[in-house]
Amino acid sequence: MTASSHPRTVRELGEFALIARITADRKQAPGVLLGPGDDAAVVAAPDGRFVVTTDMLVQDRHFRLDWSDPEDIGRKAIAQNAADVVAMGAAPSAFVVSLGCPSDTAVEFVERLADGMWAEAERAGGSIAGGDMVRSPFLVISVTAFGDPRGREPITRSGARPGDVVAVAGKLGWSAAGLAVLLADADPVSGPVIDRLADVVAAHRVPRPDYAAVLELPESTAITALTDVSDGLLADLGHIAESSGVAVDLDSAALHDPTLDGVAAVLGASPLDWVLTGGEDHAFAATFADAGDVPAGWVPIGRVLTGTGVTVDGAPRTGPTGWESFA
Amino acid sequence: MTASSHPRTVRELGEFALIARITADRKQAPGVLLGPGDDAAVVAAPDGRFVVTTDMLVQDRHFRLDWSDPEDIGRKAIAQNAADVVAMGAAPSAFVVSLGCPSDTAVEFVERLADGMWAEAERAGGSIAGGDMVRSPFLVISVTAFGDPRGREPITRSGARPGDVVAVAGKLGWSAAGLAVLLADADPVSGPVIDRLADVVAAHRVPRPDYAAVLELPESTAITALTDVSDGLLADLGHIAESSGVAVDLDSAALHDPTLDGVAAVLGASPLDWVLTGGEDHAFAATFADAGDVPAGWVPIGRVLTGTGVTVDGAPRTGPTGWESFA
Repeated sequence: MTASSHPRTVRELGEFALIARITADRKQAPGVLLGPGDDAAVVAAPDGRFVVTTDMLVQDRHFRLDWSDPEDIGRKAIAQNAADVVAMGAAPSAFVVSLGCPSDTAVEFVERLADGMWAEAERAGGSIAGGDMVRSPFLVISVTAFGDPRGREPITRSGARPGDVVAVAGKLGWSAAGLAVLLADADPVSGPVIDRLADVVAAHRVPRPDYAAVLELPESTAITALTDVSDGLLADLGHIAESSGVAVDLDSAALHDPTLDGVAAVLGASPLDWVLTGGEDHAFAATFADAGDVPAGWVPIGRVLTGTGVTVDGAPRTGPTGWESFA
Repeated sequence: MTASSHPRTVRELGEFALIARITADRKQAPGVLLGPGDDAAVVAAPDGRFVVTTDMLVQDRHFRLDWSDPEDIGRKAIAQNAADVVAMGAAPSAFVVSLGCPSDTAVEFVERLADGMWAEAERAGGSIAGGDMVRSPFLVISVTAFGDPRGREPITRSGARPGDVVAVAGKLGWSAAGLAVLLADADPVSGPVIDRLADVVAAHRVPRPDYAAVLELPESTAITALTDVSDGLLADLGHIAESSGVAVDLDSAALHDPTLDGVAAVLGASPLDWVLTGGEDHAFAATFADAGDVPAGWVPIGRVLTGTGVTVDGAPRTGPTGWESFA
């Protein structure tokens, strides 16, 4: 076989053949009326509105090639956008993806990246309707995600009221703990901690937002505000507090996680810091009008109060509250 | 005044303050139901469908800071996406934008970039509904554009039929000629050529797609296929030919442009090459069912024939046909 019949880099294969290869045999979600191949895609919006969010991931800033497989990077890029769509109460319908990469990027890398993206898009209920490929000195991935409000009012950050219960669906702090393990290059130790280390590293590599925890809520649920935990619990609840004109107080006992205790003991770290300021888990945090409204699968972690800001056990936290892009 | 009261870099100002600054006092288009500030934006889709396209622009690959003002870069990023929406026959409604930039990027640069984006978004009939800001070693801009089909069937590339007339709305080759002037760093010469050089350089810096040429077509117009000329006329008409299962023959006399003749004479270049293979003008190229259907403002440049491929005056062209991302 010749090199040209099996091109190994995106330069050898070329943009159009690469797009043909990674879109071949993909099954579009029912809402994608016209997929890749024209000037633009066409997506259904049966509600008469659509929800849209976008995130950019930059190599060595948002992912590292020595820490993550291409499939993992693809899944993560889609998951963090799908979580933002679901955090409005909308069902993901479609995604568009732009990829910037060097000319000598392996075709196989792009194929595996696309496989991860398609897998997570399908898990979220959508598919990849189109995109762009450009040359760039290093990898840059931009994902835009769309969702269908399904006839309901989008759930914003601004509806929390004093007396509401704060609850979460999904793990908190696992991604931050996994990052700490990777950064420390922590040696395997004996016993059950090995499994815990592996669990949090896996959570860092690929967040698994619990989309169903939001999307299967009955319409009658008195959910008053909703966000996904992407920057860190304190920062993201701070956005709800600010948008809603309220304060939030968290109960540290409700945030206790034995897995994180085990990992933190190995690293000499604080598990509560991971829970409060670690982002990227893409758990969902919501406020419910009263404790009776907190659905199965959601864990109460605090209360909405009058005032401003976010406290823990009634006291303010010092130090960083979460991710800052330009820090 | 202290440095902290007038932060000069995005690191000093911080992501959230930067977003607040560039979104303050902006007027959203009527279709943007919820703008920046929550997990996602909400956009109207009165047609029950929306059109979506995305493009990524990378510093030194798609723009150069020594050749373009920030406003120009912003306008171009929006224009090339709006042109893709219009090339489906849809009216631009909204855009989302991700920006990757170094921490020491001047706040003023981002403000001017955003000003250019907002100006072009408004010219296209939309506004910027949301986005993302991340740290990156150099500038990367990702734009996703949405459009409303307005109850009409999207105009794809696949409807051209033998006997149709090929016509264009907008300049061809001016952007390529402007790029050639910039690359040659051509010395000012005397006489009217100076103005021609300036005109094509301006066209390279900021494409001005003639959105109205498409959007104001009466619904009865027998337009059978449509694209925007982004990669080069031969390449883009090649997509129509391939998608429609037809051939296209162009009339070189109809592509003659005295402005390009003047610029080409200075540089010793071929004006027809610029017209045929230069991209980035974002003119619109369409096929109409017969010559009587070609509307005012559109210039007939060729015919659709049975067969495959694109010819000029009946003969195939050798050499490159247009832009290749990974070349």
